[in-house]
Amino acid sequence: MSAAAMPAPEDLVLRADADGIATLTLNRGHARNALSLGLMAALHGALDAIRDDRAVRVVVLRGAGPAFCAGHDLKEMRADPSAGAVEAVFAACSALMLAIIRLPQPVIAEVHGIATAAGCQLVATCDLAVCAEEARFATPGVQIGLFCSTPMVALSRAVPRKAALEMLLLGEPIEAAEALRIGLVNRVVPAADLAASVQAMAARIAAKAPRVLAIGKEAFARQNELGLEEAYAYASAVMTRNMLMDEAAEGIDAFLQKRPPRWEA
Amino acid sequence: MSAAAMPAPEDLVLRADADGIATLTLNRGHARNALSLGLMAALHGALDAIRDDRAVRVVVLRGAGPAFCAGHDLKEMRADPSAGAVEAVFAACSALMLAIIRLPQPVIAEVHGIATAAGCQLVATCDLAVCAEEARFATPGVQIGLFCSTPMVALSRAVPRKAALEMLLLGEPIEAAEALRIGLVNRVVPAADLAASVQAMAARIAAKAPRVLAIGKEAFARQNELGLEEAYAYASAVMTRNMLMDEAAEGIDAFLQKRPPRWEA
Amino acid sequence: MSAAAMPAPEDLVLRADADGIATLTLNRGHARNALSLGLMAALHGALDAIRDDRAVRVVVLRGAGPAFCAGHDLKEMRADPSAGAVEAVFAACSALMLAIIRLPQPVIAEVHGIATAAGCQLVATCDLAVCAEEARFATPGVQIGLFCSTPMVALSRAVPRKAALEMLLLGEPIEAAEALRIGLVNRVVPAADLAASVQAMAARIAAKAPRVLAIGKEAFARQNELGLEEAYAYASAVMTRNMLMDEAAEGIDAFLQKRPPRWEA
Repeated sequence: MSAAAMPAPEDLVLRADADGIATLTLNRGHARNALSLGLMAALHGALDAIRDDRAVRVVVLRGAGPAFCAGHDLKEMRADPSAGAVEAVFAACSALMLAIIRLPQPVIAEVHGIATAAGCQLVATCDLAVCAEEARFATPGVQIGLFCSTPMVALSRAVPRKAALEMLLLGEPIEAAEALRIGLVNRVVPAADLAASVQAMAARIAAKAPRVLAIGKEAFARQNELGLEEAYAYASAVMTRNMLMDEAAEGIDAFLQKRPPRWEA
Repeated sequence: MSAAAMPAPEDLVLRADADGIATLTLNRGHARNALSLGLMAALHGALDAIRDDRAVRVVVLRGAGPAFCAGHDLKEMRADPSAGAVEAVFAACSALMLAIIRLPQPVIAEVHGIATAAGCQLVATCDLAVCAEEARFATPGVQIGLFCSTPMVALSRAVPRKAALEMLLLGEPIEAAEALRIGLVNRVVPAADLAASVQAMAARIAAKAPRVLAIGKEAFARQNELGLEEAYAYASAVMTRNMLMDEAAEGIDAFLQKRPPRWEA
Repeated sequence: MSAAAMPAPEDLVLRADADGIATLTLNRGHARNALSLGLMAALHGALDAIRDDRAVRVVVLRGAGPAFCAGHDLKEMRADPSAGAVEAVFAACSALMLAIIRLPQPVIAEVHGIATAAGCQLVATCDLAVCAEEARFATPGVQIGLFCSTPMVALSRAVPRKAALEMLLLGEPIEAAEALRIGLVNRVVPAADLAASVQAMAARIAAKAPRVLAIGKEAFARQNELGLEEAYAYASAVMTRNMLMDEAAEGIDAFLQKRPPRWEA
């Protein structure tokens, strides 16, 4: 594809909003959504914009074209193999993954095709993941002399040790059912039902109080790195703070009065 | 229920002992065993009494009435929404969970009905859990504006990351088979077999040497928070100490002589 | 067995090399490959020799006789129950497990029979494990008054919390299918296919670039003990270093040119 035909940066990620759900589509379908520096910057930028957008309560991440995401853009990386350029790619990728973890809104991966290397890392990093029966997952770097060491960070925190090592050391794809079995995805559905299934899940999350989701998501990440006693001290403080918020008063009163709660935006 | 009709504190948790098994029954069945301050104090007290009771080798935790445990007592919490009162609830709850972890005797959850919020946390915290096919598990706080941040501490240490996040972000109940699949319970049995199944498991544990169970349970919790090399140094010291105890000498000799071991109480 | 009939130390572990695969066979079949000090020293020595042997790209660990490995040699341990002797056994065992983790080459456990106590620990410690349908796994120390505290270190890092506690507190064997379900092994195959299945898996790993496997295996262990942000900083540095190696240049170019890569030894 010639430079002239390349989409403008803002088109590398498409965003569509409806009913509190922001759907982000990786839009380099011709390149199986390989994470070029441009695509990573566009996705990171889209997340930054969503972070402070109080109308967005949940994010769906999907890919255009046949693949969900095929990992880094190897052609781009080989075009400038200098240490500085390589370092910039992995720094951008790691910062992108941390941005997903730190986003106040939950992020659901909608995986219709292959998710490999940093694409598999995206799935492991998202809070939730739903995939089609045809989806395939791999950390194949070892096949091309470049071990998937950064995808490993997310993968090894999502699935059991031996399942992670098998994917990393063999580099071979696993099927959707196996991804479900090891905990890499939450649900497997027929391809025809994928979008509707994800939107339905997103809608159920979007009906929750945004500030409460944000508190919970942050707490999950933080308590996860503490010892048990510290984690309880931290989480107790979080729950106390949460209980004193209007959302808890409204939610509990609505529950006790058997009516639906009304959240402020 | 009027205050006059409330059971005395000591009746909030029933204790029945037989053959080294202490069975504790949450006894607020009318309130689905919601963890009022009174119930938490009664349960914590029962555990404290068991801690130093050398006749008790294993504990079974179950609930009276239709539910295992429905979490905190929301009416009680809304009745005094001051920061101090709220803080006291979560402090009591976290201390209770740590008391289960630190109890020398193993604790088995017997779950016949719903286990939600702090009730689900109880199940995740117990060393083992057996449930009926009708049991349901949820961390539904997000539905009422109060994210299940303290249940999350136990849940995220028991099940894979995405399974925990699904329960926490959606707040919807999961079935017994799913609880088994993600590791929240050890076994699912027909309701009619639940009590017998749990008592049989408890009896097998009660046949072990109590001091050895205590060593192992403490070591599990402690090594779990160490890096691999430190964990091995610690666990090696534990095993050396264990090997020098009478129980190991008796157990190994009995094994080599093909006879049952005789443990001191 | 009399001392005169004991195999020489070098025969306690048999090594056979072919096509980059070193197959190590625990050779105390008459004693169900109990890990005597002699056997642990022989295995540790074999691993040390492999560590710097650039012809070896992957290791298979198996057992001669009916068992994979029955744990420590209880007769030997009871013969000298002094604190110093006991301490030496657990120090040797822990050092052996760390040697497997630190070996640059991946290690696959081939489990055809029982793997108990430190034998189960070996399976949990290996990077990958394949077992026969007849294989059984247990941490039965609690049955003989000696809690499996060091096996617990490896087991609790391989399987979910409640599955580990069930094995440790009950001490009963689990079947191959259950070992697969909880993540203790990667695959279960018919006994007749076990060796071929493991060799095929080993061959696929042996086709990878050795230095890249070594980088990935080390990174897995190290990042696993870091918080998320530190893990990404570390893994990004590892990937940058890896990308600047000849193997990545060759592997990526081969991939882009749709030809097989050629690795240096």
